[in-house]
Amino acid sequence: MSPATVIREVGLRDGLQSIATIVSTAHKIEWLNAAYAAGQREIEVGSFVPARLLPQLADTVEVLAHALTLQGLTASVLVPNLQGAERAIDSGAHLMVVPLSASHAHSLANLRKTPDEVVAEVARIRAARDAAGSRTLIEGGVGTAFGCTLQGEVAESEVLRLMQALLDAGADRVSLADTVGYADPVGVQRLFEKARALVGERLACAHFHDTRGMGLANAYAAWQTGITRFDACLAGIGGCPHAPGASGNVTTEDLAFMLERMGVATGLDVPALLALRQRVQGWLVGETLHGTLWQAGLPRTLAPALA
Amino acid sequence: MSPATVIREVGLRDGLQSIATIVSTAHKIEWLNAAYAAGQREIEVGSFVPARLLPQLADTVEVLAHALTLQGLTASVLVPNLQGAERAIDSGAHLMVVPLSASHAHSLANLRKTPDEVVAEVARIRAARDAAGSRTLIEGGVGTAFGCTLQGEVAESEVLRLMQALLDAGADRVSLADTVGYADPVGVQRLFEKARALVGERLACAHFHDTRGMGLANAYAAWQTGITRFDACLAGIGGCPHAPGASGNVTTEDLAFMLERMGVATGLDVPALLALRQRVQGWLVGETLHGTLWQAGLPRTLAPALA
Repeated sequence: MSPATVIREVGLRDGLQSIATIVSTAHKIEWLNAAYAAGQREIEVGSFVPARLLPQLADTVEVLAHALTLQGLTASVLVPNLQGAERAIDSGAHLMVVPLSASHAHSLANLRKTPDEVVAEVARIRAARDAAGSRTLIEGGVGTAFGCTLQGEVAESEVLRLMQALLDAGADRVSLADTVGYADPVGVQRLFEKARALVGERLACAHFHDTRGMGLANAYAAWQTGITRFDACLAGIGGCPHAPGASGNVTTEDLAFMLERMGVATGLDVPALLALRQRVQGWLVGETLHGTLWQAGLPRTLAPALA
Repeated sequence: MSPATVIREVGLRDGLQSIATIVSTAHKIEWLNAAYAAGQREIEVGSFVPARLLPQLADTVEVLAHALTLQGLTASVLVPNLQGAERAIDSGAHLMVVPLSASHAHSLANLRKTPDEVVAEVARIRAARDAAGSRTLIEGGVGTAFGCTLQGEVAESEVLRLMQALLDAGADRVSLADTVGYADPVGVQRLFEKARALVGERLACAHFHDTRGMGLANAYAAWQTGITRFDACLAGIGGCPHAPGASGNVTTEDLAFMLERMGVATGLDVPALLALRQRVQGWLVGETLHGTLWQAGLPRTLAPALA
């Protein structure tokens, strides 16, 4: 039976991409195996971008190949363009996430394309996928959906328009991301309700950062609208190179604990995630990690049930 | 016009009581004045407990006397028993908060009384208040309402029974507190809805700790049930001496920012709170502070409106 919610681990991609310390392929595979053993069944393993731009993710093809050996694991990669998508298709990734910034300014700075040029690229990616007879799913990830460090406010109408445009261009599903930590729970509820009214279950995932401490509050607000898939990073690593101060994805182990404590099954072994965090911490000496559960520990009342 | 929500500052009491560094009376008065200037209109200024037990709060009578000179400020104190309540009445405090632990084990460890003995004490406090012709309000603060580090689970029925018993004994209103950081937003929603159904607006305040990162999520969940008053501590200081690892109240400036970002007026000047945090930090060298907004800063999109 599937758990009620899925936490998609994006630490190996969104987390590591902003970390200076290069993590070896062997350690990434160790992370993958331990995350899988802790119950994680959806993992973003890397990004098909030029290795010179992101040396940290240069081994994505190797990490993905290992991920594909893990029974029942949905392995996703980020692809910024058609070239990346072709590599994802060739490698047999289950899912490729194509990022789009609803903020025009952030889109130009981060992707060097306008949002509508990204939509056009998704149409080309869909054509390539279909031509290859591939089953790699396409997810359009709408970022800076709640505001932008560069341009300020981002209109909800623009977020919804681009989300629909991605689906019209051939994306199988979409997600909404607070790339820079601007979202609040009331805004999350409003936008996710509108988005679900528009595209239903094709709105597949919520991606929050904890920049101003609202990551879990926002996840809760999204969950209340019916969202059951959340991106998160072990140890809360991650950020955005074009969003100064916007570091820190929602922390996997904290989110898992909150959901379990809420009575919402995640399929995850929280103590095993805490143990994995400790191993990963050992590979990231000098890097800033986040999260609270590792410090406070499991509460007495829940510890036996979770252990 | 009153703001839509009130953040009651409890940093001078709940925050400082677990801080080793003694803050001078002059600094406390500086804090009070700056908090008042930043828009705070409800402040818990100290505790009427024996000075030998809590030297940090030995100057409560002086701090309260100053607070009473600030026009429109509701000054509250914590009182553990009749002796403390008599001092609060004599000093002219606007409100006294009588703590009760719904956890029997925590109650004995922390208050050296059973919960029902605390209810009986509230009846004596009410009689003393009325006999004195005083207008000092009595708030019964039901703590460990979501679980306890000592006894584990705390039954909702017991929390509700004790809350009603406090009102029956003469408390003017009650509050619910997650003293040890065990609450999750679904549990908050459930208990606050039941409590409001039972006692309506006499449930006056929500008190959360951020021990496992859920402080803001819990505040949001309580707000959704109609609660409009929240305890919080500047810089997230505070904890509970009988709850190891349970340090950190919800952070005033983070909560204020979340509410304002939600479009819910607090009457607070968030940049002024951040400036005050910096001053208080200078008095608490070596102490562990909390919070996120001071690190990330105000988002570009909101900074002009708040500044």
